[in-house]
Amino acid sequence: MSLISREVHLKSRPVGNPADSNFTIIERTIDPPDAGEVLVQNIYMSVDPYMRGRMREAWDLDRVLEGAAVGKVIKSNNKHFKEGTYVTSSKSWREYFVSDGSNINPIDPDLAPVSAYLGIMGMPGLTAYGGLLITGQLKEGETVFVSAASGAVGSVAGQIAKIKNCRVIGSAGSDEKVSHLLQEYHFDHAFNYRSSNILDELKQGAPKGLDVYFENVGGAHLQAAIACMRPHGRIPVCGMIATYNDSDTPTPGPTNLSSIIYNRVTLQGFTVNEFLDKQPQFLHDMSSWLRDGKIKYQETVFAGIEKAVEAFQGLFSGVNDGKMLVKLADD
Amino acid sequence: MSLISREVHLKSRPVGNPADSNFTIIERTIDPPDAGEVLVQNIYMSVDPYMRGRMREAWDLDRVLEGAAVGKVIKSNNKHFKEGTYVTSSKSWREYFVSDGSNINPIDPDLAPVSAYLGIMGMPGLTAYGGLLITGQLKEGETVFVSAASGAVGSVAGQIAKIKNCRVIGSAGSDEKVSHLLQEYHFDHAFNYRSSNILDELKQGAPKGLDVYFENVGGAHLQAAIACMRPHGRIPVCGMIATYNDSDTPTPGPTNLSSIIYNRVTLQGFTVNEFLDKQPQFLHDMSSWLRDGKIKYQETVFAGIEKAVEAFQGLFSGVNDGKMLVKLADD
Repeated sequence: MSLISREVHLKSRPVGNPADSNFTIIERTIDPPDAGEVLVQNIYMSVDPYMRGRMREAWDLDRVLEGAAVGKVIKSNNKHFKEGTYVTSSKSWREYFVSDGSNINPIDPDLAPVSAYLGIMGMPGLTAYGGLLITGQLKEGETVFVSAASGAVGSVAGQIAKIKNCRVIGSAGSDEKVSHLLQEYHFDHAFNYRSSNILDELKQGAPKGLDVYFENVGGAHLQAAIACMRPHGRIPVCGMIATYNDSDTPTPGPTNLSSIIYNRVTLQGFTVNEFLDKQPQFLHDMSSWLRDGKIKYQETVFAGIEKAVEAFQGLFSGVNDGKMLVKLADD
Repeated sequence: MSLISREVHLKSRPVGNPADSNFTIIERTIDPPDAGEVLVQNIYMSVDPYMRGRMREAWDLDRVLEGAAVGKVIKSNNKHFKEGTYVTSSKSWREYFVSDGSNINPIDPDLAPVSAYLGIMGMPGLTAYGGLLITGQLKEGETVFVSAASGAVGSVAGQIAKIKNCRVIGSAGSDEKVSHLLQEYHFDHAFNYRSSNILDELKQGAPKGLDVYFENVGGAHLQAAIACMRPHGRIPVCGMIATYNDSDTPTPGPTNLSSIIYNRVTLQGFTVNEFLDKQPQFLHDMSSWLRDGKIKYQETVFAGIEKAVEAFQGLFSGVNDGKMLVKLADD
């Protein structure tokens, strides 16, 4: 029996903020799985800021988009996957897909809720873990600033820094998110970057300067952080969301970059792919932190594939508190 | 018998380009050396771009300036220093000084001409050596771009890269300097940044992109280099001379910094102090390269302490080809 699966295609390349008209929803007929294949129904899909960059040229037009998803095997002709198994894949932006088993990975729903495998136990969690501890070389007792600190990556980075007994300063885009950083995640200092002066806040929150700036934003955040870096400070560069929707007028770059010379500061770009070999250690550490209540997470969930574009767009206006997800089916 | 020594003081802090009026020459009476002391006559002094930064706040007003100098012990009451010994010190911008021996270092005039200890065998040489090989982690056969490539540091960095069998691209500020890079230093590609498009030149000179950008300039150079960096590329940041004289309107920062994320590029500021423990290896390598004719150097020499400010100012308009020196006395 065939199924109808709705999927989101890129119709045209966004200029500036992604518009509804850049996307379209297509209905595709999914044939039943052949021998050795499984049929997966997606339960959750992830929308992430990095996708904006892929839309510039990496992703083809008139094709289904990609990204992390958690699904459930609902029909299996493959002995390695029982029906009912939860799997992660890169086959998001669609309701169903058929796989030969090579591009899906089983996950353990007893270790954490399945949606967490798109957030704190998934790519955003590993990004924060590797970016802070490997790229950023964070040491116990240092002072760390995390921008977009209530986001999927930033909230994990900040909490890991707290676990490492660091002083943690965070920025977010609303007073509600700031309260959350202070009360739920126990940041030492947090501020709403829309209503305060970033440099003043950093001087107040980190009077001795910053050892690490976990960079998610770019623009004015980076300029202010550079001004506060201590000698041999590190800036792991995870994202620059403020610049992703640049069109004709690019967001100005920092004018004080030359101060990294005398302070011997390192800016280092990274992606989660740098840390794939650390995944077993990461899953071990993160699941025990979760179990011990040392780390928390939040999700903002939109419902239905017809809301996927709105969820993606919301990343750039800060609609989400924590990981932004789209729920595609009831579990 | 007392001596009169002329010395240059900082009278006011430069705003924008350093002006004549920011400096003044004072005559000081130098008393004969006491027991254990020596009298040094400076032969050469160095002017360097980093000094512009020190004039912002680190150096006091109405005091003699500092920096690297080569002098000769002309009167000695210290058994460790024979009269006629050549020494380096940080006591530049003056004609004579008295030392107890703790802040002067003897140099070997048989290994290289004494002026070279302010350039290729001195701080600029070690800066290039460490910045390229340690901070920049240059590997055999890579592609390297050096800006301000005919300067004291850049010309050494480019030639070391050639010794390491790298493809080397250089920028300079005149056609004459460009010819020099190609013909004397054997760069693979060189261009006059004042009359050409930096990005176009980099694409032509390094069609497969850059593994290392040895950054001396900032501004448009950095923007173009970032656009050409290969995955895991390194940008050792030695200087940003284009920005040092910024006053009200800062030189724009690069607007394409976010591309360091996907390409996992590292920008790392450094100063020569990082490499002081590598000095013996550096002196060994550099003197043998000089002896074997594998590396060459140029000097632009102004004569007389009354020309020191003009020499310093000339650094920012590109008057020098190679190391800029001021000769304070005949040898």
